[in-house]
Amino acid sequence: MVQGNDGVAGFDKEESGIVLTPIGTIHSPFTSPEGMPIQPTGAAAAIGTVEVFEPYRAGLKDLDSFSHVILLYHFHRGSSFNLSVIPFMDTEPRGVFATRAPRRPNPLGLSVVQLERIEEGILYIRNLDILDGTPLLDIKPYVPEFDAPAEVRTGWIAQSRGSVATRIADERFS
Amino acid sequence: MVQGNDGVAGFDKEESGIVLTPIGTIHSPFTSPEGMPIQPTGAAAAIGTVEVFEPYRAGLKDLDSFSHVILLYHFHRGSSFNLSVIPFMDTEPRGVFATRAPRRPNPLGLSVVQLERIEEGILYIRNLDILDGTPLLDIKPYVPEFDAPAEVRTGWIAQSRGSVATRIADERFS
Repeated sequence: MVQGNDGVAGFDKEESGIVLTPIGTIHSPFTSPEGMPIQPTGAAAAIGTVEVFEPYRAGLKDLDSFSHVILLYHFHRGSSFNLSVIPFMDTEPRGVFATRAPRRPNPLGLSVVQLERIEEGILYIRNLDILDGTPLLDIKPYVPEFDAPAEVRTGWIAQSRGSVATRIADERFS
Repeated sequence: MVQGNDGVAGFDKEESGIVLTPIGTIHSPFTSPEGMPIQPTGAAAAIGTVEVFEPYRAGLKDLDSFSHVILLYHFHRGSSFNLSVIPFMDTEPRGVFATRAPRRPNPLGLSVVQLERIEEGILYIRNLDILDGTPLLDIKPYVPEFDAPAEVRTGWIAQSRGSVATRIADERFS
C-alpha cells in the first residue's frame, strides 16, 4: 500500500497510506469525553492501565526503569476534523496544529504519563487524560534530554496558564 | 476499514486498521541514516524545513507563536521490526518500547524541535534529527505543562547520559 514512499523523488501523497495496527488498549475511568481532564497535568489523581497485547509484550523489557512514558494512541472518537478549532482553553479559533484538539487530519494522540509499575503486560499509570477503550499505537520512554527543551515560549496558551490544570473536556472532544 | 472501533465492546484488533495520510514532507541535510544525529539534542546546528501540503496549511494559524513544536512522522525506511533491540547508546538488548529505535511495531517517530519561523506553509526548524524525505503526520505545540513532568527517572539511558548529544546513527537505523 505504501508506494513510492522511500525518499523524496516520486513521493505521491495521494497514493500512499500508512496503515497502523493497535498494539494494546488504554483503560481509564473516563468513559465519555464530558468531565475528562483535558491534559495529564489536570489528572494527577487519575489512575489507569495500559494493556499491551500479548504478541508485543516482549518489547516492554526494561521499560519499568523509566518513571514516565510517552503514549501514542488513536483518537478513535469522531472521524472528521476542522483546520480551525476553538480550544478548551480559549475563546478564539486557532489553527488545529497550534492546539492539542483530538480531531486532527491524522487523529494521533500523545500523552506523557507517570509509570507506576508493569505486571504481565499491563502498565499501571498516573496522570491519565485518555478515554477508556482508546487504541494504543506506541510507547516510548520519556527522556528529558530529548523531549524537554529549555527556554520555551508557548504562544496563545501562555495567556491561559494556570487554568489548564483544572479544566475538563466538553462536547468538543467528540 | 476501521470497524467496531468505537468504544471497548466489540473492539477487534484483528479487523481494525488505522490509515494515515502524510500531511507534508520533512526536508533535512540527512539523506542517509549514517552520520545523522540520533536525537534533536545532538543536532543543535542542524537546520531543516517542514513542508506542509497546501490543503492543510490553514491549520498552521497561530503555530508561529510557539518556540517549539512536536513533529510526529512516519519512519519510512525499513518495513520490519524487532521487539528486542540494541540501542545506539547501549551494548545490551532492550525492549523496543524502552528505546527510541525507528523500527517499531507502528513506525511512528516523535521529535521536539525548535521553530524559527513559518513562511507559506514551510516551517523552518532547528535541532533536527530526521531523515530527508520523511513523511509528516502531525504537528502539535510543545507545552511544558503537558509535556515536561518533574522528577523524571530515565532507566538504562541514565547510565549513558552525556554521550547522547554527540552520538550519530549507524546502520541500525535502516
